[in-house]
Amino acid sequence: MNLEQMGQAAQAAAYVLADSSTQTKNHALLVMADALEANAEAILAANEQDLAAARDQGIDAAMLDRLMLNPERLAAIASDVRNVVSLQDPVGAELDSRVLENGMRLSRRRVPLGVVGVIYEARPNVTIDIAALCLKTGNASILRGGRETFNTNQELVKVIQQALQSSGLPTAAVQYISEPGREWVNGLLKLDQYVDMIIPRGGANLHRLCKEHATIPVIIGGYGIGHIYVDDSADLTRAIEVIDNAKTQRPSVCNTIDTLLVHEAIAEQLLPLLSARMAEKGVQLVADAPTLALLTSGPASVRAATEEDFDTEWLGLTLGVKQVADVDAALAHLRKHNASHSDAILTSTLSHAERFINGAPSAAVYVNASTRFTDGAQFGLGAEVAVSTQKLHARGPMGLEELTSYKWIGQADYLIRD
Amino acid sequence: MNLEQMGQAAQAAAYVLADSSTQTKNHALLVMADALEANAEAILAANEQDLAAARDQGIDAAMLDRLMLNPERLAAIASDVRNVVSLQDPVGAELDSRVLENGMRLSRRRVPLGVVGVIYEARPNVTIDIAALCLKTGNASILRGGRETFNTNQELVKVIQQALQSSGLPTAAVQYISEPGREWVNGLLKLDQYVDMIIPRGGANLHRLCKEHATIPVIIGGYGIGHIYVDDSADLTRAIEVIDNAKTQRPSVCNTIDTLLVHEAIAEQLLPLLSARMAEKGVQLVADAPTLALLTSGPASVRAATEEDFDTEWLGLTLGVKQVADVDAALAHLRKHNASHSDAILTSTLSHAERFINGAPSAAVYVNASTRFTDGAQFGLGAEVAVSTQKLHARGPMGLEELTSYKWIGQADYLIRD
Repeated sequence: MNLEQMGQAAQAAAYVLADSSTQTKNHALLVMADALEANAEAILAANEQDLAAARDQGIDAAMLDRLMLNPERLAAIASDVRNVVSLQDPVGAELDSRVLENGMRLSRRRVPLGVVGVIYEARPNVTIDIAALCLKTGNASILRGGRETFNTNQELVKVIQQALQSSGLPTAAVQYISEPGREWVNGLLKLDQYVDMIIPRGGANLHRLCKEHATIPVIIGGYGIGHIYVDDSADLTRAIEVIDNAKTQRPSVCNTIDTLLVHEAIAEQLLPLLSARMAEKGVQLVADAPTLALLTSGPASVRAATEEDFDTEWLGLTLGVKQVADVDAALAHLRKHNASHSDAILTSTLSHAERFINGAPSAAVYVNASTRFTDGAQFGLGAEVAVSTQKLHARGPMGLEELTSYKWIGQADYLIRD
Repeated sequence: MNLEQMGQAAQAAAYVLADSSTQTKNHALLVMADALEANAEAILAANEQDLAAARDQGIDAAMLDRLMLNPERLAAIASDVRNVVSLQDPVGAELDSRVLENGMRLSRRRVPLGVVGVIYEARPNVTIDIAALCLKTGNASILRGGRETFNTNQELVKVIQQALQSSGLPTAAVQYISEPGREWVNGLLKLDQYVDMIIPRGGANLHRLCKEHATIPVIIGGYGIGHIYVDDSADLTRAIEVIDNAKTQRPSVCNTIDTLLVHEAIAEQLLPLLSARMAEKGVQLVADAPTLALLTSGPASVRAATEEDFDTEWLGLTLGVKQVADVDAALAHLRKHNASHSDAILTSTLSHAERFINGAPSAAVYVNASTRFTDGAQFGLGAEVAVSTQKLHARGPMGLEELTSYKWIGQADYLIRD
């Protein structure tokens, strides 16, 4: 099939899904979860092929680990699918309604988006995850995974499509682009006649590619420089715990902090505590000049920062540190240095908290809490489709509702406009 | 100023606007409304220059009428600005909130989008209209109007910026791209570092241009083929009134109908009534073969339809007519022929109404009502920014709320993630 045909098939499937009951969709999800476990042998064999190819290409251990499925991981994936069954189906809910003066009953009803295109990298669990979330919300999906997981994904999609078929749903409800070649990605990004939304799940380069080439709305997200600003009224002992958590609990993910901004009045007290803790956790500090002077005698490894350091998403055990004069200076830094994901203020001063909440350009703003909470599960959304850092459609963690749109419904008695 | 500088200035202004009270924004709007009337002479003189240039270029009467301002139109524009003052400011409202199990108080608060880019064609009222709606919602705007209204827009923006300045708001809250040349439009479409949303206000070509070149989310809308499907259980006498209204009340706009779908069981009764009424209103009918046979003896002008006719948005006194077997056949026609804006069913059968509501791919679906109601004012939104036919962010008429985003706010007591 070419992309045009895939798009047509997806759109036709989307019409069927939009008309399917929650019961039908849930049944298909349960069949899918069972089929993943029943077909474990074939799936793991395909995964072994991908792993062998990856090893031959000298791919690093971290990447191999992301590629790898084993019985436990597969069981966890199946369990995630069963969890999606238990979530409330947002489709069909009335968002609001009113009776207009002319007697028309006007309402907005939640409907599926239609067809969702997803482009992602190595992790095979994304294939199941996104297919399940799209199916639950009545959306057809067209998936394009990384070539490192080609065999695994082929096998997973086979299982999904069998589950769809045996549940009486069209197999084109979940399609996978198997052909190699960048032209297929570029083609998908321009399939606006059939595809309603593109979700890139990957790094900044993938997002940039989608932004530049797509003629379809793209959900941009998943990166941005994270900051904690420690105000002069913060409880410094407890502040260290929050900073530590936001930096080191899981250093490779997008809701960690990259830069610590310290009110200059408390720098002399805070920085020794920081140096001790960061030394203990193996975090290298990258400091502006006034801060460097206060840190050089401490136990933590430290070097002088360049301006670019404050524009760097470290995704590892490095932390920028800079002194600022007040909350407004902290906000000015955030605005200049691509704060768009998760940022926090630690303070006891109400007006500073409010100022930071209003002024931070971030999808998620915290007062006296770690930035690590920006996550669909932590926020109680039940599922996470993506974390948006754009302002249209959805911002921050996206759950099932963010895979829907709405339509206006006007009902009357042969009403005409004057 | 180059575009980069305009983008920077707009972003800086957006931060100030996001922090401004409703009172401050309303004050600026009232000053703007007064200034439009106080500067009527200069504005109308500039408009006369544009009109003279347009006449020299042999621009048609309809276009000249769209360009033209006079004291009454200017007063109406000022009055629209005062109306925006009376609308509720959506910014700052809490959309929802909860306390998580860990004690974090998590809420979503409505915030401005930031910077909105608007590209439009001839009508100078759009300049004021969109500037006012953006200002009310705390968004900075970068405007690019058609070259036919260059002088008028220059003068209008001067008035706007003076009003901003005298109200203590940054003049860069509303900026206008005065330079001619397509490269400025293309540049604006790629200014994703500073601009959060693009609204094209114009025809299909402008929307296509934006879709293809923008790296910024674009609100696509304002066109689509409009349909009425007359079911076999419809009240035919009253159906004619609704069809007439949907076709002829204002034939040039986007919420009129282009195609009438007639249940084949009632075609013989309905079509003579239709022919008589359409003849009276000067509407030419374009019919499929079975319908043509029933229409040739009637008073209305009629010709045979080609398939392309059912993909044509007439924007004038032409109406496609086609017979269909039932509501599902009507829906199949809608899906094939780009129904995305406003479509209606006329029926007495509840299950057919529900089937049509669920199945129509339209932003607005009507039961026993004219499609002409798809409009921000008719829907009680108070203002209309655009009519979206895409499914992301907003669908159908967009009011002030659709010029906003939200941010997540998490407040706790030095909370860390386990």
